[in-house]
Amino acid sequence: MAGKINFVDGGSVTTPGGFSAGATYAGLKTYAEDKLDLGILLSDRPSSVAGVFTTSAVRSPTVTITQERVSSQSKVRALVVNSGIANACVGEQGYLDAQEATAETARRLGLRSEEVLMGSTGIIGVELPMALVRTGISQITPSEGGGNDLARAIMTTDTHPKEGAVAFECSGKTVTIGGIAKGAGMIHPNMATMLSFLTSDADVEPSFLQRALSRAADSSFNMLSVDGDSSTNDTVLILANGAADAGIIEEGTPTGDLFQEALNKLCIHLTKELARDGEGASNRLIEVTVEGATDLTAARLAARTVVSSSLVKTAVHGADPNWGRIIAALGRSGAEVDEGKVALYVNDVCIMEDGRPIPFHRDGVVALMRGLEVSFRIKLNLGQSEATAWGCPLSEEYVTFNSAYTT
Amino acid sequence: MAGKINFVDGGSVTTPGGFSAGATYAGLKTYAEDKLDLGILLSDRPSSVAGVFTTSAVRSPTVTITQERVSSQSKVRALVVNSGIANACVGEQGYLDAQEATAETARRLGLRSEEVLMGSTGIIGVELPMALVRTGISQITPSEGGGNDLARAIMTTDTHPKEGAVAFECSGKTVTIGGIAKGAGMIHPNMATMLSFLTSDADVEPSFLQRALSRAADSSFNMLSVDGDSSTNDTVLILANGAADAGIIEEGTPTGDLFQEALNKLCIHLTKELARDGEGASNRLIEVTVEGATDLTAARLAARTVVSSSLVKTAVHGADPNWGRIIAALGRSGAEVDEGKVALYVNDVCIMEDGRPIPFHRDGVVALMRGLEVSFRIKLNLGQSEATAWGCPLSEEYVTFNSAYTT
Repeated sequence: MAGKINFVDGGSVTTPGGFSAGATYAGLKTYAEDKLDLGILLSDRPSSVAGVFTTSAVRSPTVTITQERVSSQSKVRALVVNSGIANACVGEQGYLDAQEATAETARRLGLRSEEVLMGSTGIIGVELPMALVRTGISQITPSEGGGNDLARAIMTTDTHPKEGAVAFECSGKTVTIGGIAKGAGMIHPNMATMLSFLTSDADVEPSFLQRALSRAADSSFNMLSVDGDSSTNDTVLILANGAADAGIIEEGTPTGDLFQEALNKLCIHLTKELARDGEGASNRLIEVTVEGATDLTAARLAARTVVSSSLVKTAVHGADPNWGRIIAALGRSGAEVDEGKVALYVNDVCIMEDGRPIPFHRDGVVALMRGLEVSFRIKLNLGQSEATAWGCPLSEEYVTFNSAYTT
Repeated sequence: MAGKINFVDGGSVTTPGGFSAGATYAGLKTYAEDKLDLGILLSDRPSSVAGVFTTSAVRSPTVTITQERVSSQSKVRALVVNSGIANACVGEQGYLDAQEATAETARRLGLRSEEVLMGSTGIIGVELPMALVRTGISQITPSEGGGNDLARAIMTTDTHPKEGAVAFECSGKTVTIGGIAKGAGMIHPNMATMLSFLTSDADVEPSFLQRALSRAADSSFNMLSVDGDSSTNDTVLILANGAADAGIIEEGTPTGDLFQEALNKLCIHLTKELARDGEGASNRLIEVTVEGATDLTAARLAARTVVSSSLVKTAVHGADPNWGRIIAALGRSGAEVDEGKVALYVNDVCIMEDGRPIPFHRDGVVALMRGLEVSFRIKLNLGQSEATAWGCPLSEEYVTFNSAYTT
């Protein structure tokens, strides 16, 4: 069965061996029954770590401290994460609060502060109420079944938690990668932030772990957001603790390739979940694949530009096969395009070839565009590179929601 | 009075001396009383010309032919323009049709084909019905009062025509610059295209005319559209025919500076009109000024990124002083930002200083944000460069309109 990657039923961030999690309601979000806003992820042994962080010039001290710790040491043990408040635009106090929250978590778990990372998401310009955070941390007891609680504790505008896990065989052992993620607004990661926390019981060579995460993020989370878009708090972390006891996984080996493929699969799964749960998306997904581009950069640029076009998004909302908008977005994307060579498919129905529309059964295509998944496949016929991007329709609900959302 | 630039009451593209215009309903748009869809602009003498065109890889042959004629000769006489059909994505036929339309116009006016330019806007993927175009051209008789008709003939989703003219004294004569423009969708120039046609009775040295137009477009029309956004048909043209008999205007002279300033003023006026008439904008305008940037590129990038953020646009629609969204857009813009130095003003009320929110009277700011013009002034306090960008709120009406808009 080597080489086969399977999704684990009901998988989450605590599915890989040696990981536990827990969460509580600390009072950082408006109260509702069953609401959680503070959580902890714990590895029972030192874990390799890698991260991908916001590139914004305005960033939360939570991110700064976490990024420092990820890059300055090879092993960590835990993560504390809060939702409701982003701990951004609060000056020096934000650093002190993030330091204290990780120190408090370390104390609770019997670790060193430096072994604890942090994530924050929520409104910006508001200080963390540290008395509530301290009390909250003292109430959390991580357990092996706690992944779903943690997935719920990081939600802000999300309507449901996003989780998943994949597994594959390696040296006769089962290796698992699990993860959770939270929401993206509709057009790009909301200032409310895109967070994803991944775990694995694989023992991954640390520099490979970082490259594998960066590659996975480039073909998943970064294909959800518009080019350059990034909030103050965006963070993707992976902890790999080796609990599967399956030997060290290195780059350029069959097992390394399998690990990369499994990680990509999981990240793409979470990305599609984020797109479907975009504000006002009503669980509908847009997938744009660009084939035959001159190079990967061009393919990604074109796919991202089309999927993030408001005119394309509203056309999908209205189930309108408005190919002109797709071609217009493609044309301005910056990717090399030879108009006379372009072909376009809507859910596998060809509606344009050689740069010109072909007669198609409009009612049939409209029916396809009413489905939960609408895919546009664009063939540039210029080269061999391909990329896929994900997004969701732009609906009136998105506007209403974001007009009413309070500061 | 030298140095003074005045707007001309009721000014339009035919206000400058020597220009006439006319329009007709040729049948390219759905019929409605008073609807016009084909027009001609004529100069009574050879006119210098300059243009700024879409940078899209997919472009209408109308644009290609016009751009070739603008760059291959210094003088032209006329322009024919149609709305309703963009003459884009129709293969070789688009070139033949654009050539024929300009030849037909030349014949009607007693000119050479090469002296006639063309503009098109409307749906793409549909061939121009040349029998209607030919008949239409034969019905148009340009007149000195025809500017408003031409402004109406280029409208697509616009709710009203955009026109204007400015005048200044030069060598004892009055020099006038006039212009018309048509719409931009809300987020960026719709595939239905941004067109602007400008005229002047000044005698402007041709290479200066091109540089002056590029500079004016960079600080006006290009600050309305999102960076890189461009439709298949975007075109800005200026014809300068010297009818004012005020001597040649050259770069680097006081008169040259005055001409540039007047042209900027007119283009900014038309840009603001385009923003106000954005789809779903309900005549409301957002103005974002970034001051104290390290350089002009950074200032423009920051201003454009903020004004084109869907989260900022929806916040203005909801009259919500959600400064976090502004700061988040600023942070991801790519411009250099030192969070601790940022100040933010909403319609001149300071709500953030040194990167932190300051207590402000929320109800007062909300009231300001309900007005027809909402301005955000961002001080980066890093350098001396400044830029302004314009946009409009994102409303439910925009989504409804663009979901229902037919292919």
